[in-house]
Amino acid sequence: MKQLPLDHTPLLPVDVSPAVIKRLPRYRRYLGDLVSAGRERISSAELSRMMGVTASQIRQDLNCFGGFGQQGYGYHVPTLYDTISELLGTTEGYRAVIVGAGNLGRALAATHMFERRGVNRLALFDIDPRVIGTTVHGLPVYSVSQLSDFCREHAVDIGVLTVPKEAADEVVHALIQGGVRGIWNFANMELSLQEQGVTVENIHLGDSLMNLCYNMKVNGLTK
Amino acid sequence: MKQLPLDHTPLLPVDVSPAVIKRLPRYRRYLGDLVSAGRERISSAELSRMMGVTASQIRQDLNCFGGFGQQGYGYHVPTLYDTISELLGTTEGYRAVIVGAGNLGRALAATHMFERRGVNRLALFDIDPRVIGTTVHGLPVYSVSQLSDFCREHAVDIGVLTVPKEAADEVVHALIQGGVRGIWNFANMELSLQEQGVTVENIHLGDSLMNLCYNMKVNGLTK
Repeated sequence: MKQLPLDHTPLLPVDVSPAVIKRLPRYRRYLGDLVSAGRERISSAELSRMMGVTASQIRQDLNCFGGFGQQGYGYHVPTLYDTISELLGTTEGYRAVIVGAGNLGRALAATHMFERRGVNRLALFDIDPRVIGTTVHGLPVYSVSQLSDFCREHAVDIGVLTVPKEAADEVVHALIQGGVRGIWNFANMELSLQEQGVTVENIHLGDSLMNLCYNMKVNGLTK
Repeated sequence: MKQLPLDHTPLLPVDVSPAVIKRLPRYRRYLGDLVSAGRERISSAELSRMMGVTASQIRQDLNCFGGFGQQGYGYHVPTLYDTISELLGTTEGYRAVIVGAGNLGRALAATHMFERRGVNRLALFDIDPRVIGTTVHGLPVYSVSQLSDFCREHAVDIGVLTVPKEAADEVVHALIQGGVRGIWNFANMELSLQEQGVTVENIHLGDSLMNLCYNMKVNGLTK
């Protein structure tokens, strides 16, 4: 992670509108590619062509990030990338565990997605004695019976839920007991834990597949 | 799949507003659970409590589905489920291949998500000679060099893209050559193929993880 300039004052999320926030992960992705490619500056016009968003939208979205993006000069790519990353939480040092060492849990253990966003994965948890005690892509697999204690001892922030729907309630209970503050939920059931102060992000891959099928059907009708 | 009543006239997507369509996969999930549990009828009030949506929203969303949902009578669960499923495309008989037999491709090969939505998976494709010729969760793994021909011969509709970003362009080209009309894109790059008449659904798990981190950060500040 590159250092921010010394005169950088961290933005608070309250400074930025929720609509802009929602678009920031996508900006961050494109800016990350530019950083990797060694780009120092980019104009809103070029970013607009890359992202398929109007240049005026980009200027509106990004100009609140501390006056970068001067006319005829463009954005300073690394600074913009770091500022957006920090705003989104990549410098919070969040720690995560993956619960469920099945196909999806193993796939998530294999990606670099977490560390690239500043989230440290500590371990996997499962109930299957055949996988407990093994290592999956460098992560140890522990028994779900140890989940609460482990989360408390290691100050785990995030639980990634990849267990079957039927097991989800018990695992969520253990995660909350362990002091986890966020759940990334792939368990194909909806969770809402606001009243317990736990942030949830539900992933419904099946809904996405249905959207694809529906749009294919519509596009087929209008051809 | 249950038969629809004989007097059923298939709804065309054009009859339903895009905002309602976007919410339909979620209705379908809840209704599917009710069908599995053997429920015949449900009131908008009960569905409202289950789903955390107002009853009036539910009535507005679902009352265009052919006059089910009479006062004091509720919705006929199996009919509503079947109508929504058909509208979303589950009876189109779509055929899919998964390209990339890595961790994510294997995880997608293992789920029942596709067949539950009427999509038939035919095969996996990869470039690794160690996996070509093997079977993953009952699906044969073929060489990517055969992708176009296979898609054409088997009238494949959907390509599920789980290859690394760098390989995506070539695979997309082969899928389009093979006549595929829809791409479910997990390749962590954005695709837009409207001008080629190909429907794309992009999945960005990393953006979802960033949303979680951001919301945790905000919830931490406001505690």
